[in-house]
Formats: sequence, C-alpha cells, structure tokens
Amino acid sequence: MRTETKPEEKNTESVAQQIRHQMRVIKQGAVDLIGEEELEQKIERSIQTGKPLNIKFGMDPSAPDIHLGHAVALRKLKQMQDLGHNVIIVIGDFTGKIGDPTGKSKGRKAMTDSEVAANAQTYQEQIFHILDRDKTQVRYNGEWLELLNLEEVLNLASTITVARMLERDDFHRRFHTGVPIGLHEFFYPLMQAYDSVELKADLELGGSDQTFNVLMGRSLQKERGQEPQAALFMPLLEGIDGNEKMSKSLNNYIGIYEDARTMFTKVMRIPDKLILKYFELATDIMPEELDLIKEKMADGCNPRDCKILLAKEITSLYHSAEDAEMAERFFIEAFTNKEVPEQAEKLCVVLEHGTLFDCVRPLVNAGLVGSGAEFRRLLAQGGVKKNGVKIDNLEEAVKSGDVLQVGKRKFVRVETG
Amino acid sequence: MRTETKPEEKNTESVAQQIRHQMRVIKQGAVDLIGEEELEQKIERSIQTGKPLNIKFGMDPSAPDIHLGHAVALRKLKQMQDLGHNVIIVIGDFTGKIGDPTGKSKGRKAMTDSEVAANAQTYQEQIFHILDRDKTQVRYNGEWLELLNLEEVLNLASTITVARMLERDDFHRRFHTGVPIGLHEFFYPLMQAYDSVELKADLELGGSDQTFNVLMGRSLQKERGQEPQAALFMPLLEGIDGNEKMSKSLNNYIGIYEDARTMFTKVMRIPDKLILKYFELATDIMPEELDLIKEKMADGCNPRDCKILLAKEITSLYHSAEDAEMAERFFIEAFTNKEVPEQAEKLCVVLEHGTLFDCVRPLVNAGLVGSGAEFRRLLAQGGVKKNGVKIDNLEEAVKSGDVLQVGKRKFVRVETG
Repeated sequence: MRTETKPEEKNTESVAQQIRHQMRVIKQGAVDLIGEEELEQKIERSIQTGKPLNIKFGMDPSAPDIHLGHAVALRKLKQMQDLGHNVIIVIGDFTGKIGDPTGKSKGRKAMTDSEVAANAQTYQEQIFHILDRDKTQVRYNGEWLELLNLEEVLNLASTITVARMLERDDFHRRFHTGVPIGLHEFFYPLMQAYDSVELKADLELGGSDQTFNVLMGRSLQKERGQEPQAALFMPLLEGIDGNEKMSKSLNNYIGIYEDARTMFTKVMRIPDKLILKYFELATDIMPEELDLIKEKMADGCNPRDCKILLAKEITSLYHSAEDAEMAERFFIEAFTNKEVPEQAEKLCVVLEHGTLFDCVRPLVNAGLVGSGAEFRRLLAQGGVKKNGVKIDNLEEAVKSGDVLQVGKRKFVRVETG
Repeated sequence: MRTETKPEEKNTESVAQQIRHQMRVIKQGAVDLIGEEELEQKIERSIQTGKPLNIKFGMDPSAPDIHLGHAVALRKLKQMQDLGHNVIIVIGDFTGKIGDPTGKSKGRKAMTDSEVAANAQTYQEQIFHILDRDKTQVRYNGEWLELLNLEEVLNLASTITVARMLERDDFHRRFHTGVPIGLHEFFYPLMQAYDSVELKADLELGGSDQTFNVLMGRSLQKERGQEPQAALFMPLLEGIDGNEKMSKSLNNYIGIYEDARTMFTKVMRIPDKLILKYFELATDIMPEELDLIKEKMADGCNPRDCKILLAKEITSLYHSAEDAEMAERFFIEAFTNKEVPEQAEKLCVVLEHGTLFDCVRPLVNAGLVGSGAEFRRLLAQGGVKKNGVKIDNLEEAVKSGDVLQVGKRKFVRVETG
C-alpha cells in the first residue's frame, strides 16, 4: 500500500516554501523591511489567487545616466518581477513641472511637458536594460495630483502634524539651524504618500534616504482604509573608491553603458570588503549562490578570484557573456599577469609631481604623441586610459607600473628612475 | 482788485482735509493700523477718482447672536461706508463646509450647504441692522477656494516658511507645549490671505487676535503684484463687568436685539473707566464729539451723566430715539431717583446667603408668586429681572436696594432687616 500525500498538505507546504523563497529574495541586500508580516500575507494571497503584487518605485524626471548605484533598486525590482510581480514606476512629472515655486533652488527648475516627456523617454530606455518591459507599468503622478483640489489637499494635510513633519531628518536639521523651509516642501512627502494610495501599492521600494516618505505612504493608506504597503529600503552602494556613495560627480561610478572592458576593469578596482555587497546589490545571483561565495571567501579563497567572478557577473548583465569573457582576458593580460599587451612599451618617467603631467614630455620624446598640445587634445577627447580606465586630467595620479593607453593601440608601462 | 484762490490750490487743500478727516474716523478707537501711508494714498486716489475703497471683513458662518462686542467691527465698517467706501463681508463657507478634517475639534464640525446658507442669512439680517445694505457686498470664499488645485495651493504655500508660520501666537504656544498642530491648520491663515488677493482688498479689518492672518494678506498681495491692503485692528470690548472680553458665555454682554430698557440699564452698569471706550467702540459719534465728552469728563462732570448720554446713544442706535428716551425715564425712575415704579412694593428679606435664594420665601409669603416651584419655573423661563436685567439663577447676588421684577408687572425693592 502506497501512502499518498494529501494534495492540500502538499499545496500548503509548497506555498509556505514559495513564501519563504520570495521573502528571502526580496530581503537579500536590503537595509530594512517594514511590514514584514503583512508582506508575507500579501505574498500568500498573491500565490493563492495568482494576482501579482504592485511594487511601487518613484523617480524624478531628471533623466540621470544610470550607474550601478541607481541600478541597485532596479535590480531588486527585476528580482521581484522574476517572482511574478508587477512593477509600477512612478515618474514625478507633477513635481517636475512645478519645479520650486520659490525659484530659490536651482536644481528644482520647472520643466516643460516636452522636457519631462523626453527625460521620461530616456529614463525608460535605460531602465528596460534591467527591467522586464511586460511586467512594468510607467505612470506619471500628474495624472492624479493635477486633479486634487484644495479640499482634498486639506484632507491630506490633516493626516499629519507639523511636529511629525519636522521629525524628518532634513527638515529637522534645517529647522534647528534656521535654514528656511518653504511650507510647500511639506507637501512633497505627502504627495509621494498619496501616490501609494492612488496606485494601491503593496510594497514601495526606496533608498534608505526615503524612509520618512515611504512610511508616510503606509500611514496614509491606512487612513484611507487600504492595506498599508510594505516598505523595502535598499542601501546606498559605495563607489569603486570604497568610501563614498557612488556618484558621477565623485567619478567613482560604473555606468551601465560603459564598454565591457571598462566595466570589468572598474569592478576589479573595488576594495575587497565590498565584494559581497556588490554581489548582493549589483548582480542578480540567488541567495543560495551568494551563500556559496560567502563560504568560498571564508575558506580563504583569493579575493581576486571572487572579484573576477563578480566582474564577469556584472559585465554579462549589461553586455553579453562573450563580451565579459573578452574583458576578462584583456584584464588578465594587461594587469593580473603583469604582462603588458603586445603593443606595450616601457616609458621612463621622472615622477616629479606624481601625476600624468610628468608623463607628457617622455611620451612626446618617445614619439608616441606629436606634441604636448596633441596629448592634451587627446586627453580631452577621452583618448587616454590608465590601467584600462579613461582619464581626462593631467592631475591624475600616476605611479610606477601603471599602464597608459594613448589612442587606440599605443600602450606604455610607466617606469621610474 | 480781488485776490482769487487758485482752484487747484483750493482743491488740494480740500482733498488734504478730506484725507485727514477719513484717517481720523478710521483710526478712532483702533488698536493699530498697518500701512498708514499707503492707506492715505489710497484714500487720496479714491477721492480724486470717486472710486470707493474695498474694505474687507471676514467672518465664520457660525451665526452668532451679535452683541456690542461683535458690533465694534461692524460699526467701524459702517463709519467707513459713511465715508463712501464699500464693505465686502467674506463669509468663510469653504472652511465651514470642510470643518475640521481630523474630526478632533468639536467646534469645527462640517456644515452642509443649507446650514451655511441659513447661518449666512441670519447673519446678514443682523449685520444690516448696522451696515448700509447698498454699500455692502457679501461674498462666500468657497467661490474661489473651491477652484484652487494642488499646483496653486503649492504656489500659495511657497510664499511662507514653516518657521514664520510657527511664529503665530497660538501655533507657537501649541508647538512648544507639544499640543499637536495638524498641517492643514497652516492653511487657514493662507486661505484668509488669499481672499484678500481675490477681492483686491484695500483694507482689511480684524480683531486684534487676527494680526497674523491679516498681515499675511498684505504679504501675499505684494507677492502677487497687488498693492498691499492696509490692516486695521480693533480692540476687544470688555463686557459690562469691566474685566473680561464681552461674551455670551460670561453673561456680561449687551445683545443688539435686547429691548431698549435692558440695553439702557446694562450700559448704565459698566464701570466708569469704560465710558470713553464704549463711546469710541460702541457708538458712531464723530471724533470731534468724542473730544467734547473727554473734555467734559476731564472737567469733573458726573460720570453718571456721561453714562446716561452713552446709554441713550447706544440704545438709539439699535432702537428709536423715543425708545431711548423711554428707557432713560424708566431707568431714572427705577434707579437713579431711588423711586420705584408705581407697581413696586418693598420686600423684606433676611439676606442669609446674599443671593436670590433668600428672596424666594418672602416672595411667596407676600403672595407675589404662588410657590417656590412656580418662582423657579418663572426664573428658568426668563421671567425674573434684577434692576431691569434678566437673571436666571438662584445664586445671583442680591443686596438691599435691588429691584426685582417678577413676571411682567410685579416689582419689589429688596429691603433687609
């Protein structure tokens, strides 16, 4: 006689497993998840009804060039899409079009409809490099915010006290140091919260600097008789210098449009302590794979090997697997094996300043560029790389052993003395 | 040869005189006038163009029974109408209909359209007892506030900082004692200010507790490229007890609908120190007449004579001159000459408690009421007066010489021992 598993039991177990799996994927790498139990219930209901959750993610229509720092949230969204859920990107066109009514903040200039549309277009092209187009809805919050009248605005405003609003970090700081806060600024968190009501968001994803606003969405939904959204916060990703938040202005970023070699090489430059964080936040590997890598590193494996895995993983995400292979080969040839590419020559430099400036005369003397002026032109045009990474400044630090690439094919290795 | 006054010169002088006169009437009795020079210019322009100024006065649609305390502002408005200007009464129906969205404040229950309309109707019946109907416009602020959308609301909000808003007395006090302030409450001053913009008000009249809101109107008008309204503040009028602000709940009020005798008698009860203030705030006498009364009082005239003048002045404002005469005669008969009216009897009372309670038994014994219960019923129904003023409480203080009126025709003078 065969014992049979009751179908219900099997189902129950499988649902529980699925919930556990989803929760694990969602939480991986996150700083915080508010409303965890509620989220589990939502996921359970979603599994049982086959109805995906609404995952909300807001962005300003300022059209950034997306780098791996921005991509942290997008990859998390993608993971949730892979779990079957829907992503709603909320483009803050309403706020964008208003700009800063005081005109004091240069960064908050009012945009026209067509500027907003153009930026949103650029943005979408970029996000669909990462997100699944079929499981993504793009909404503009002007759709509903433009329709609010004063009575509705006052109703919104009545859901929060002035004291509570002043608890928000930046408002608190400004209030107590006497930096003016325009009354309209109190509305931006409320508007973001109202977006959640309008979209019946099940979960909102935000950077860790968005805690206040995202939680306000929860309380406003409760106020309006909705189930409150779960709030998932992703950490900020440090740039390749390992210290500061990744940002274009600090030049410590890896853009998602950089060529495979640059991308690979830049990843190889991150400090070892960031390897696991990059795996968690900048790739799509599953929690189980991450555990394997953690084990490997704990077992004393050479961090460089893990970093190569990471660089290949990241590079294949934004290019092809073959591109990643080629980038790896280039990297190993150029740096790891300490063999210079075939075209490389040695360049004797007296490092008086310790910068690229010291190399200009030797390069001219060696006949690699026609003149100092030509070199500067080439530098300005992006035709100079150090260790595989574009540089654009004579102040760039240069030390013995660095490989300079001048133009497409000329490689030199700097030697001192 | 006759010297001729140049017409321009004559004109100029007469305009200057008119301005001086108008300013004097406007400022009489006021606590403060902000924008005095601007107001002079507005008046000058008004005289030259024949175009009246817009005088704004706001009120809640809560339909109070108007007493002399409320009438202070209305009389000032009437004086300005007599100078040729237009009064715009702004009924805050928008705020009234919203009520308090938090539902926490009982006093701010949302009213329906028909309630607001009914209250506004009652209010208008009362104000036209004082104001000139032809020079009065009644507007409902819902007209324009209902049309504001979020963008316009944010624009309004951006004209003020949170810190500035928290300088308002009541907000300041509540913020620093931890009493919650709903964010929507910050909008009430802004809405009042916006009313001024919408009405292109030249002057707003407010109680001295309205300073913040009225001044906000000035700054918002400037912001919107309008000439800022002048801001005129009237003091609060003390009640007949001479201590507290006149109010129904403190039972120290003189209602504008009280009969002539009651009104006259109540005025006679105010302390001497308030005679001039009542002349200034509760009558329409001209500054020159007020000067005469001041002189009289300085010359040592009996304050009671001045008070009789005042009581006649006030009584004739709300009744006829004849009614005022009759009230005076009644008063003098009853109180001043210490002669009781013909119907009066003496009532011997042992003042054990010093209150009306002591009189009940003697009244029953004298056959003036059937029983203690009947007296209590009469008292509750408003059928008992002391010195011409209705009383409704057995705790009411009674002393020797007081005249009690029980029912329509029975008068007794209290005598002790």
